[in-house]
Amino acid sequence: MPKTAHIVLGAPAEQAVFPEPRQGDSVIGVDRGAFECLSRDIGVTIAVGDFDSVTPEEKAALRSSAESFHEFDSDKDDTDAEIALKIAVNDETVSDIRIYNWSGGRLDHLLSIFYMVYQPRFKKAIGRMTLYNKTNTITFYPPGSHTLVKDTARQYLSFIGMTPIEELTLRGVKYPLDKESYSYPRALVSNEFLEKECRFSFSTGLLAVIQSGDK
Amino acid sequence: MPKTAHIVLGAPAEQAVFPEPRQGDSVIGVDRGAFECLSRDIGVTIAVGDFDSVTPEEKAALRSSAESFHEFDSDKDDTDAEIALKIAVNDETVSDIRIYNWSGGRLDHLLSIFYMVYQPRFKKAIGRMTLYNKTNTITFYPPGSHTLVKDTARQYLSFIGMTPIEELTLRGVKYPLDKESYSYPRALVSNEFLEKECRFSFSTGLLAVIQSGDK
Repeated sequence: MPKTAHIVLGAPAEQAVFPEPRQGDSVIGVDRGAFECLSRDIGVTIAVGDFDSVTPEEKAALRSSAESFHEFDSDKDDTDAEIALKIAVNDETVSDIRIYNWSGGRLDHLLSIFYMVYQPRFKKAIGRMTLYNKTNTITFYPPGSHTLVKDTARQYLSFIGMTPIEELTLRGVKYPLDKESYSYPRALVSNEFLEKECRFSFSTGLLAVIQSGDK
Repeated sequence: MPKTAHIVLGAPAEQAVFPEPRQGDSVIGVDRGAFECLSRDIGVTIAVGDFDSVTPEEKAALRSSAESFHEFDSDKDDTDAEIALKIAVNDETVSDIRIYNWSGGRLDHLLSIFYMVYQPRFKKAIGRMTLYNKTNTITFYPPGSHTLVKDTARQYLSFIGMTPIEELTLRGVKYPLDKESYSYPRALVSNEFLEKECRFSFSTGLLAVIQSGDK
């Protein structure tokens, strides 16, 4: 059965939101994020990380409560978030990947998470990966036609061409576009939904869409 | 005489820092950022924006105190930050562009500012533009050999390949590289200075370097 993989990172609490997994979903808790799940009674399917951000007692609690526990060296090549995404992407039963707590900590970490979708090994995440925090929802799209449903309480809608983008059409928004092409990565910010859905399409490139309730 | 253009945006105060312009420098205050300069006795050379984020009284104060005042329609194609950068880039006497208060507000705005250097019209900003906030310094580099001086109190050093990067060499850092190439944009985070300077070079692409003191 298609399931959702919830990846819970460990960024500071200010922008933190936590998953409400359904039966059958997996929760991949990353370092401090795994312990934050445990302390909220969210069952951790897989705990991963170098666990330098938890106490020995917290680590012991995780080791005994998580279904699976993977400890990695902090000098590894992959970031914790990459290790977690690799686990989610390689699980054939996962149809939807949600990442929590990627903001409010280090800015370079935030960019590094945003940039994961450029990696060929994570190509399968495009179209089914979403980044959530309290005030933003970020989704990533391959070429084609897509429909996006408005997140309530998020006023702004931004289309970020992460690569050159060809024939971008936007419908159902305040500032529509008709087959516009951009020869370099271009952030088109501050658009807005006119209805509760918008439709968009493009023929080549990689697009991120941000729904933002930030002030 | 070469001068610095200080672009002061209006993001919330939490991460705000303000310029200390030297004689001859220009201060480009953007919308609320212009008024924040005025209220700190930082002389505003050019105030730009749609000024929807200041009161009529604050706007009147700006109009009478700024050397130059440019009011734009809020439905314009360019963002306020783009208008300010255009002014700085087109000033032949400017050798150094510093941007303040680009963080702590909307995440899509932050990305849009980070993405400005992709635009051909801002190519001249690469190599002389720096984004400052309380805990991060971001600089952008064209291909070639570069030396970077450590910002005190900023532990982490991240190299963000904003495009494919060829022959990236890093010296004087905890994790050195020798002519590594990346066929897609790649964020290399959590490196550190070994000394007070590091040297790096690459042969093609566009590189952002972040010095971060974020937790």
